[in-house]
Amino acid sequence: MTREELYAQIRRKRSFLCVGLDTDAKKIAESQFDFNRRIVDATAPYTVAYKPNLAFYEECGEDGWVAFRQTCEYIRERHPEIFIIADAKRGDIGNTSEMYARAFFGEGLVDAVTLSPYMGRDTVEPFLKYDGRWAVVLALTSNPSAADFEMQELAGGKRLYEQVLETSASWGNADNTMFVVGATQASELAGIRRIVPGHFLLVPGVGAQGGSLQEVAKYGMNEKCGLLVNSSRGIIYAPDPAAAAREMQLEMNELLG
Amino acid sequence: MTREELYAQIRRKRSFLCVGLDTDAKKIAESQFDFNRRIVDATAPYTVAYKPNLAFYEECGEDGWVAFRQTCEYIRERHPEIFIIADAKRGDIGNTSEMYARAFFGEGLVDAVTLSPYMGRDTVEPFLKYDGRWAVVLALTSNPSAADFEMQELAGGKRLYEQVLETSASWGNADNTMFVVGATQASELAGIRRIVPGHFLLVPGVGAQGGSLQEVAKYGMNEKCGLLVNSSRGIIYAPDPAAAAREMQLEMNELLG
Repeated sequence: MTREELYAQIRRKRSFLCVGLDTDAKKIAESQFDFNRRIVDATAPYTVAYKPNLAFYEECGEDGWVAFRQTCEYIRERHPEIFIIADAKRGDIGNTSEMYARAFFGEGLVDAVTLSPYMGRDTVEPFLKYDGRWAVVLALTSNPSAADFEMQELAGGKRLYEQVLETSASWGNADNTMFVVGATQASELAGIRRIVPGHFLLVPGVGAQGGSLQEVAKYGMNEKCGLLVNSSRGIIYAPDPAAAAREMQLEMNELLG
Repeated sequence: MTREELYAQIRRKRSFLCVGLDTDAKKIAESQFDFNRRIVDATAPYTVAYKPNLAFYEECGEDGWVAFRQTCEYIRERHPEIFIIADAKRGDIGNTSEMYARAFFGEGLVDAVTLSPYMGRDTVEPFLKYDGRWAVVLALTSNPSAADFEMQELAGGKRLYEQVLETSASWGNADNTMFVVGATQASELAGIRRIVPGHFLLVPGVGAQGGSLQEVAKYGMNEKCGLLVNSSRGIIYAPDPAAAAREMQLEMNELLG
């Protein structure tokens, strides 16, 4: 999916909501796929992206992989306008990275994959060779231990995550690269926007992790929006997932002005 | 598997060879599992560890996941003394990291998983809760773009990978944590040994990537060995995989003194 198509969907739905499909097989009564199908049907009008979290499917072995694939295929078939992000946080080199890219993009299963930048350019490059597909690179995450390395100051005065933004933005462009920035790091968003003014930011951490949508929009939005804000547990385990998604969409509608 | 059991196996086989099962479905005539079974049977006498590379299985979707699982089960059944490392380079936070740990350790499929440290302590900690299982943390990798971030100098004068070694060594201990150090970085090994004298190092990059086993042993070995040196393509695609593994084992036998 192109950046323009994603923007068009944001304008049409008046939403920049991404619903995280962190579907814990132990918490649900149905199968993972049946659960996801129900969530997708309930939330699709308010949602521009879905983000299945691979850990929750791998935990079920090959059955989980089937549920992941079926979920992606179902979204493609019923809601072809919706962007799909495999939250896989892969990161490896050369021929291995090419294999991961093929796993996720080869048959068009998803539009984007989250990637860890630790090993550098080799990690990301194979994902940029697929037209209309996206690398979503970890920059500054929402967890407390982001301080361990991401926030470390480099000799030149930048912090590691700022260097990651700057360097990895140069490997691709705003049409094939996004960055993960946690909502709990809203105070950093203004600075991040100076480094990558035009890129989409994928922002997890609103809701269960305590981030504020208002703050994220205030500091992170660019003139075209440039945000995908993710909520997982706050929507998929809500008593009424459609209402929970609609509530976020209404708030986003106001923030879009 | 405990550190002592791993050492005992190294002493018994006079080898610290890890065979990387980077089994590319497009390069082989048999199924991935049949190929792996053949490689395992041929190389087990010379090998103390196998390292299936998850990318090559994910590329085949759920069939690949089945092949990965069957391969691990086969090694467990036929060669229960051999250490299994899932080369997955996972890395996520809190409840997601717990899911990944459960996926790989929950049913005892493997002994160790490679992890990317970018997001900090949260990434690694859930893997340390399983007795006799190991987190294998990326430190300094064998690819050229290791220079992008791993080699960056921090404000305090250390390089990022040195900080990663120091910090992540404090989360666990030498009985549940190993580090990945590429064989192409042999010049750095002496310095790395000063930071983590007792930890096992998993060293890929010998062979196809150009690293030298002699150099790795010279700078990276500690008094008990402390090395697992991986070869993938150089063994599994060799005309005679048993001979290729035996050749490395003979060289290792000499290096073990």
